[in-house]
Amino acid sequence: MTALTPALEEFLDGQVVGVLATEPADGHARQSVVYYVRDGDRLLISSVADRAKVRDVERSGWASLCVMAPQHPFPSATFSGSADVLTQDIGVATAAIAQHFMRSEQPPEPQTDEALAAVGRVIIAIAVERVAAVSQLEQ
Amino acid sequence: MTALTPALEEFLDGQVVGVLATEPADGHARQSVVYYVRDGDRLLISSVADRAKVRDVERSGWASLCVMAPQHPFPSATFSGSADVLTQDIGVATAAIAQHFMRSEQPPEPQTDEALAAVGRVIIAIAVERVAAVSQLEQ
Repeated sequence: MTALTPALEEFLDGQVVGVLATEPADGHARQSVVYYVRDGDRLLISSVADRAKVRDVERSGWASLCVMAPQHPFPSATFSGSADVLTQDIGVATAAIAQHFMRSEQPPEPQTDEALAAVGRVIIAIAVERVAAVSQLEQ
Repeated sequence: MTALTPALEEFLDGQVVGVLATEPADGHARQSVVYYVRDGDRLLISSVADRAKVRDVERSGWASLCVMAPQHPFPSATFSGSADVLTQDIGVATAAIAQHFMRSEQPPEPQTDEALAAVGRVIIAIAVERVAAVSQLEQ
């Protein structure tokens, strides 16, 4: 069973960026803005293998994404759960995220896993197990 | 010495909402969207005393706010540091945050601390000691 309702899925599909929170081994929670796409109950985020947030997820197995619409009254919600760093079969998701980033009509041609590995690209995948802080938004 | 440059101050003053991260005693980092104002090197966030995020700050003495402009390419940065929950002399800041929320030309008349305490309103104040994840933004 998923924590995502149709209304929350529609909200997620309508936005392109969110604020990722990850947990370092030592120190405080780490936040940064990331591009994402939804894939069923998962949120997929493109990143680079040597980034601190990627190491956080590899070690802790957890991440949170807070998504907000950009207009007043800023409807928002926070989606969190188990998270993994993916390096296999990530071409289509990486292309879909790049499409958001470039604001193009069509996604770019997906690259192979080998080509993405050569430039260090990975996907952080969050399995949405918890939805919290839902604000100005139908659940 | 502050971690905020004039460019970062201008960026902060141009936005009205951010994603707050706090640390529960048990469990994972907690994120939610909040309205804020900048007061010098501090970020002031209006909240309610019985909210989990307020209890997190009271206990941990730390918070992080990730702020993003709402248009592509979504310039953003994360501001964190020691944090306190204020209940004294919070009328002016609370009114300024309400002004942002209501998008009014002028702030509402500041309430007394006693009136704000009666409805449980507090201010979370973050002393910005660290700026991280600066993206698409002059530092």
